Amino acid sequence: MKLGVCYYPEHWPQERWLQDAELMRQAGLSLVRIAEFAWVVMEPREGQFTWDWLDQAIEVLAAEGLQVILGTPTASPPPWLCRSHPDILPVDAQGRRLRFGSRRHYCPNSRSYRQHTERIVTAMASRYGNHPAVVGWQIDNEFGCHGTARCYCETCARVFRLWLEAKYETINDLNEAWGTVFWSQTYGDWNEIDPPNLTIAEPNPSHVLDYYRFSSDTYVTYQQLQLSTLESLISERQFVTTNFMSQFTDLDYHDLAKPLDFVTMSSYPTGHAESRHSLYMPQSVRPVYAYDVGDPYITGFGHTLMRGYKPNRPFWVMEQQCGNVNWSMYNTGVRPGTVRLWTWHALASGAEAVLYFRWRAGLYAQEQFHSGLLRHDASLAVGYVDLEAMKADRPLMSEISSTPYEAQIAFLLDYDALWATQLQPHHRDFDYIRCLFVYYRALQRLGLPVDILSEDADLSPYKILIVPTAFLTTEQLAASLKAFAEAGGTVLLGVRSGFKTSNNQFTDHPLPGLFRDLVGITVSDWHSLPPGVSYDLNSSIPGLVGPATIWAEALNPADSQSGDPDLQMLANYSSGPFSSHAALTQYKVGAGLALYLGWYPNSPQAEALLAHLATHAGVLPLADLPDGLIASRRGHHLILLNFTEEPLTATVQGRTVLIGPRDVEVVKTQGS
Amino acid sequence: MKLGVCYYPEHWPQERWLQDAELMRQAGLSLVRIAEFAWVVMEPREGQFTWDWLDQAIEVLAAEGLQVILGTPTASPPPWLCRSHPDILPVDAQGRRLRFGSRRHYCPNSRSYRQHTERIVTAMASRYGNHPAVVGWQIDNEFGCHGTARCYCETCARVFRLWLEAKYETINDLNEAWGTVFWSQTYGDWNEIDPPNLTIAEPNPSHVLDYYRFSSDTYVTYQQLQLSTLESLISERQFVTTNFMSQFTDLDYHDLAKPLDFVTMSSYPTGHAESRHSLYMPQSVRPVYAYDVGDPYITGFGHTLMRGYKPNRPFWVMEQQCGNVNWSMYNTGVRPGTVRLWTWHALASGAEAVLYFRWRAGLYAQEQFHSGLLRHDASLAVGYVDLEAMKADRPLMSEISSTPYEAQIAFLLDYDALWATQLQPHHRDFDYIRCLFVYYRALQRLGLPVDILSEDADLSPYKILIVPTAFLTTEQLAASLKAFAEAGGTVLLGVRSGFKTSNNQFTDHPLPGLFRDLVGITVSDWHSLPPGVSYDLNSSIPGLVGPATIWAEALNPADSQSGDPDLQMLANYSSGPFSSHAALTQYKVGAGLALYLGWYPNSPQAEALLAHLATHAGVLPLADLPDGLIASRRGHHLILLNFTEEPLTATVQGRTVLIGPRDVEVVKTQGS
Amino acid sequence: MKLGVCYYPEHWPQERWLQDAELMRQAGLSLVRIAEFAWVVMEPREGQFTWDWLDQAIEVLAAEGLQVILGTPTASPPPWLCRSHPDILPVDAQGRRLRFGSRRHYCPNSRSYRQHTERIVTAMASRYGNHPAVVGWQIDNEFGCHGTARCYCETCARVFRLWLEAKYETINDLNEAWGTVFWSQTYGDWNEIDPPNLTIAEPNPSHVLDYYRFSSDTYVTYQQLQLSTLESLISERQFVTTNFMSQFTDLDYHDLAKPLDFVTMSSYPTGHAESRHSLYMPQSVRPVYAYDVGDPYITGFGHTLMRGYKPNRPFWVMEQQCGNVNWSMYNTGVRPGTVRLWTWHALASGAEAVLYFRWRAGLYAQEQFHSGLLRHDASLAVGYVDLEAMKADRPLMSEISSTPYEAQIAFLLDYDALWATQLQPHHRDFDYIRCLFVYYRALQRLGLPVDILSEDADLSPYKILIVPTAFLTTEQLAASLKAFAEAGGTVLLGVRSGFKTSNNQFTDHPLPGLFRDLVGITVSDWHSLPPGVSYDLNSSIPGLVGPATIWAEALNPADSQSGDPDLQMLANYSSGPFSSHAALTQYKVGAGLALYLGWYPNSPQAEALLAHLATHAGVLPLADLPDGLIASRRGHHLILLNFTEEPLTATVQGRTVLIGPRDVEVVKTQGS
Repeated sequence: MKLGVCYYPEHWPQERWLQDAELMRQAGLSLVRIAEFAWVVMEPREGQFTWDWLDQAIEVLAAEGLQVILGTPTASPPPWLCRSHPDILPVDAQGRRLRFGSRRHYCPNSRSYRQHTERIVTAMASRYGNHPAVVGWQIDNEFGCHGTARCYCETCARVFRLWLEAKYETINDLNEAWGTVFWSQTYGDWNEIDPPNLTIAEPNPSHVLDYYRFSSDTYVTYQQLQLSTLESLISERQFVTTNFMSQFTDLDYHDLAKPLDFVTMSSYPTGHAESRHSLYMPQSVRPVYAYDVGDPYITGFGHTLMRGYKPNRPFWVMEQQCGNVNWSMYNTGVRPGTVRLWTWHALASGAEAVLYFRWRAGLYAQEQFHSGLLRHDASLAVGYVDLEAMKADRPLMSEISSTPYEAQIAFLLDYDALWATQLQPHHRDFDYIRCLFVYYRALQRLGLPVDILSEDADLSPYKILIVPTAFLTTEQLAASLKAFAEAGGTVLLGVRSGFKTSNNQFTDHPLPGLFRDLVGITVSDWHSLPPGVSYDLNSSIPGLVGPATIWAEALNPADSQSGDPDLQMLANYSSGPFSSHAALTQYKVGAGLALYLGWYPNSPQAEALLAHLATHAGVLPLADLPDGLIASRRGHHLILLNFTEEPLTATVQGRTVLIGPRDVEVVKTQGS
Repeated sequence: MKLGVCYYPEHWPQERWLQDAELMRQAGLSLVRIAEFAWVVMEPREGQFTWDWLDQAIEVLAAEGLQVILGTPTASPPPWLCRSHPDILPVDAQGRRLRFGSRRHYCPNSRSYRQHTERIVTAMASRYGNHPAVVGWQIDNEFGCHGTARCYCETCARVFRLWLEAKYETINDLNEAWGTVFWSQTYGDWNEIDPPNLTIAEPNPSHVLDYYRFSSDTYVTYQQLQLSTLESLISERQFVTTNFMSQFTDLDYHDLAKPLDFVTMSSYPTGHAESRHSLYMPQSVRPVYAYDVGDPYITGFGHTLMRGYKPNRPFWVMEQQCGNVNWSMYNTGVRPGTVRLWTWHALASGAEAVLYFRWRAGLYAQEQFHSGLLRHDASLAVGYVDLEAMKADRPLMSEISSTPYEAQIAFLLDYDALWATQLQPHHRDFDYIRCLFVYYRALQRLGLPVDILSEDADLSPYKILIVPTAFLTTEQLAASLKAFAEAGGTVLLGVRSGFKTSNNQFTDHPLPGLFRDLVGITVSDWHSLPPGVSYDLNSSIPGLVGPATIWAEALNPADSQSGDPDLQMLANYSSGPFSSHAALTQYKVGAGLALYLGWYPNSPQAEALLAHLATHAGVLPLADLPDGLIASRRGHHLILLNFTEEPLTATVQGRTVLIGPRDVEVVKTQGS
Repeated sequence: MKLGVCYYPEHWPQERWLQDAELMRQAGLSLVRIAEFAWVVMEPREGQFTWDWLDQAIEVLAAEGLQVILGTPTASPPPWLCRSHPDILPVDAQGRRLRFGSRRHYCPNSRSYRQHTERIVTAMASRYGNHPAVVGWQIDNEFGCHGTARCYCETCARVFRLWLEAKYETINDLNEAWGTVFWSQTYGDWNEIDPPNLTIAEPNPSHVLDYYRFSSDTYVTYQQLQLSTLESLISERQFVTTNFMSQFTDLDYHDLAKPLDFVTMSSYPTGHAESRHSLYMPQSVRPVYAYDVGDPYITGFGHTLMRGYKPNRPFWVMEQQCGNVNWSMYNTGVRPGTVRLWTWHALASGAEAVLYFRWRAGLYAQEQFHSGLLRHDASLAVGYVDLEAMKADRPLMSEISSTPYEAQIAFLLDYDALWATQLQPHHRDFDYIRCLFVYYRALQRLGLPVDILSEDADLSPYKILIVPTAFLTTEQLAASLKAFAEAGGTVLLGVRSGFKTSNNQFTDHPLPGLFRDLVGITVSDWHSLPPGVSYDLNSSIPGLVGPATIWAEALNPADSQSGDPDLQMLANYSSGPFSSHAALTQYKVGAGLALYLGWYPNSPQAEALLAHLATHAGVLPLADLPDGLIASRRGHHLILLNFTEEPLTATVQGRTVLIGPRDVEVVKTQGS
């Protein structure tokens, strides 16, 4: 377990650097990320490079034994570049050309910007690609942040048309794929197609989904431009990555992760404390934790997402909150012990390294009110004090960090399905990510480790596979789920699965479309349920009770001959128009099982169902846990994290373990 | 009573058409609307027409005995047209040129668009204007939908100036009419006048009212362009209409209805279930009906509006919801029996034909999640099943449909007054349409039929005339109300009447301005009442109690000699600064009565007052009704519709009638 | 005490003027403001002036003994001017060029507009600068109203660059001042700098603060253009002023006030009744007054602000509400007695003259629903009736008006600090003006007069100086506070003081930065507290209890040797992470005291603390007052104003005084 920090030497007098480096070393840090916003310092005028300061900064850090990660500075094109090439500036969905003055002010399709990107990356890589103190590279910074994932400029319109032509080949194929005959949208020529903004009513959802895919691909291509440039110039010893944001969904992180050496993330547990609660069901009671630690289930959800983007490599936390943030509604102050808890949490979730953001609180510009490990006046802040307290933990941390995170349950996360439900939620509260999170949190509460994967991932290590809503379907996905079940696995297919083709059209097969064969049932009808309306449920599974809300589907045997011995009705509706129908079914498929869940489950329902499935699949919980206590296993170590203000106890393999308020206990366990 | 359906043959393989047509016939349908969004299918490239598919589709439908209504496809100009003539695209109030990609993307004043409109309508009418299977035409589709009633482009600015010049003749007359001397707005030249958008503070309300009138006139003119083209080419046997939206108020439907053969509407009872409750008073308890039927009082209000736009012709429901919709917040699923109830409701309200929207749920583009009579996979949906259940009702329906809807009470609806109150509500909750609806619902609850008319309508069949707020006044309106009263009628003039001239200026006469003579009182003062503030009321009319909220006016005898025997104080304020003043007065006018109501009534007050007026005018209620039970009479048939989940009873001419949950009873009554 | 009225002779037929003037005189009015929106009437076409009507209007008014104030009409450039010079129209922060059609549609940096401004002001001043009936001039009208304080057009961009160049001299100094090295913002050339709008993330707060300062300076310069023009042409006998808006904070009124003869204000107590409650703490119980008088503490706060902008001259109320307004959510009707109460309140707060807005309710355009002293039909409205009732008060009013308003307590109001907290509140509810108001209201409740001053003001008359948050600091401010304390005064420095430099950078000194020396403590940590989180307080000061919310700072002795006898801990935290720290300290400085308050106080806390401070500084309250009763002293007169519907009693120098509902009592007191 390596610890590190994000540092901005260009923000501080050179005389201070040595003292900073010493303090870093003394705190047990070994990694430093620098330079990711320093373009104008490296190149104050086009073609005039000033490397001395950066040479010197690396020197000073290296002298204290610190390893350097260099960021390419493309998240912040300098003023001279935006003035000489105004086409670099992006256009928002409102049609407004945005301005220089903050960051991420570029269109990734701008030809000028791609040229200048190549130029600056080449210059940096040429100079530091073999520097012994430089261990790796971060490309750009938080692609898509501040709503920049989708640009609507003329360049993007032009490139989008080329992207469409490459995808569909003939305009007729595009017309068929989008169903443009509706509302007279049939295109006669590629040039008639615009980005789907500023339309009068909502635009065609197939058109928009393709624009989302195109925009995501644009960033993959833009990242590749940097990656190729770097790889041609840097040492094999140096890694290349970029930093993702937890729960950001505008870009397909599976695609972005693919060519990288490993994935890193930004983790700010209180950074969106107010808004992230949209992950909970409407009207549900919000859990209360120690107010300054954030919601640990949401933090862990972020970790888990990262772990899954690159299943074979541990992830890094490239930016770990270490005090208050500055961009949220309240920017809650952070108390002693919190930073240690967050660090342990990252480790418990599978992180290999954690870098704190940032070294010292900045004196100027946009992030002045963001904490660092040092305060503005260079005194030691709460995070630094926690680092000192963590020194005793470090040997155990290192031991744990070398062991893998293992899970027997997996989710599938599909960006196409996610975007398609965003475009047509049909019910205001039908949210793809929340649906995933409800299951995720249920598993965490039950002490059951889980991975979140793309459908391309190797599913063989898993016993249970959960697809909360396979809204868009392909033959390939249907086949792969079937194979998983046939091999003995348990597949849980959630509500609204199989409704759509990959072109975002409605299937004309009986629902759930391509999955009918897998689950052995037909969805004969479906209802969106407004607030206040629910259908009662009845089930033999203990605890699987209460109302179906938001969405309900009526399930029937696919063969209409209801006596099929392979098909079992696990729950049915006991009130409302679907009361003669099943709500949850289980179908025997080869050596395994395929379940179809016909409503949008709430948390207790998700817990009851998953407890049942885990028991039947022989997946054992890590511990018996109260709310607010998170358990995670790495190798033989069971890590127990208490995020509340009260002491809590867990039962681990028959043993009672007491964990103090906002404290950590690590228990050696048998088996793995 | 004819039933029909909206069909999109261009969305389905030709091989399927025959089967669809057979299923339509089997369900008892006889009307099919087609082609209203099919421009690009009829004319894929400028001047290249492809009629084969449409010839064929009409053929297949006709072969099953179905009658066809053709829509002109101008609600969706094709991509090639928007590219070659970008001036077609409208500009919104934010000054943004909007884009192709959905529908209604045209400026009705665009010269290019008017030319191309004439071209395509000519082409269609030439081909099908004498086709035996084509019974009529729908012009365009839902004018003004998606906020398109008012365009702010340069063309509109130019045409607006011409419209103003035609109206005012001299710039000086315009300056006087708008009161432009205020804030130095006096224009020296027509060219100095802009559309009233993007101003810093609110624009001049006379300027805006004229822009609203101009925009409405623009659509009247645009409709006339199509109407004239059609009339010159089609058979006399074919009707021409367009389809209105219930409760849409951006265009003057009285004007649009005038040249049409009859009026048709779109009726989506659950389509705006969340937002339409703005029709209820703030803080009032929302009534609860069967959750999937919508609010029947609001649905009936829509029907009643339509009936009044063309008083001498029954209206059609050109689009009747027949399952869930796709554009609202929750898009509630619809249960068996609901479509039958809606169909009966339309008939009860005076509809002559009902066409369901749409035949089969669409597989692609924007409305995929909208139900049809068939599901996506062509299986029979809830609406189709209801149609089959309705077969037993059809003889009775047909009998009823030939009889007229009769009412003895009428409202006046004036778009100028409506728009003027929108522009200057003065109290956030002063809403013209809600004020109308409060009275409407009171009458429905009392079992009293009512019509909603323009002031040009023939008022002689009515005994009671209600003008909820005659905010803008003309000499002509004052005279016509007076004549109505003198002839023995009862006129109820509501709060804020007579405040304004037709130029949207404040009257400089004592209030209620031109109506003083009619009602015999002066409004000596008026107060807008914030939430939490109300003035108590006292009245001899049973039930007319409780607080005056939102707005209160102090009424005094116009002659100041309070002993006028023709003037009666029916209610007075018993608290607050107006406590020495009347709140409701009644004045003897010839053989009739003129009442002035000085506050914004709530529902119980409206019920108490209207019950009193009906009794005194000899207007008898159809039945004694509980909430959720709607009664309507057509000829000798009293139709009772139960929109709740409980059995309800009504008392009809002394007889108790039981109506099952979401069911219909038709009772033969004496008299008519 | 002079009374007057705002009059628009151009709105009424000339035949009516004489009658209006007589009615004004009869009501006891002696001042009339005219012409401030009459540009197009004075100059209907460029260069064609029509003065006859204005000559005549002044003549008629003068004949009745009325004195005239002329407004320069630049708040409403006429249509012909906007058409010939479209660069006059401003651009908003969204980048939209706004349109003619309301008012304030000009960019004050537009060269064309400055030329035309000079031209029209010259013309008016030449004609009326020596007119015996004209006593003074109002420049423009409510600068910055309707969000126009900041324009984002190209002209402004250009002038902003010049302003920056004049301020910083070298681009490098600007880069240092703004900290542009952050996010690669370093400018190489002045021309690279834009206004800080349309950025992707938030712009640099130093950049924005300079734009706010620049925009304010722009209006100072624009006002100076008019002032210089006037001064060169008018008689010395005529005053020059402009009218400010209470609680408007987008322009620095200290700067605007400086060159004026005195300050005038618009006072609309119910004009923002709904939104002004943002001055109260979130979740606090809203006080209830007579519903139509507004919140008297907020009204008085407006008066007090005005008094402080020009400390040596009494202010005028140039626009006093005299009935309902027309622009708020409810526009509450106003009852008899209210206008008298408002007039007395202005006088009590130090006003020398009060002009009612407006004479007669307008018949057309935007403000038709705004009351006047006469109604639309010229009958006497509630305000006129109050004026008649006030006749008996007038001798006493005049006697009082000649005596000064005196206070021994002062606040400092700093626009830079205010804007900087707006830009980085860090906690949604951290509001500079509310923080000031909480203290202000506490003093009013305690019967303690207070002034609100700029830091340049003469502080010698005061015993207590309160700086709610000296967020931005200069050496000069630190020195002036120290001098005040050393001379025997008591300084109360509030939360978040000394955090920032005048460039809006964070200090790198220990907090409170430059004030450490003054208050003798260090802020060792600070926490933003989300809703639901608070730290308990403990204090020896009676009543200073309850939780610290919103913001808390941990205070420690600056010398770390805690035994400093000059430093006293007046309150400390008794729970939470700061529980070993002080929350309020008092430091002996020369002959006086300097206190530092480490949290954002609520109303009861502010009252407890200020009562304690006043007692110790020997500042005596005017009276013992219940809520809703406002006391003010001018000379020997104590004015008691009851803003509730109940009779209230005050204890004044041992005597009980009864004040009727919405009534006034004036008590002669001893001492001054």
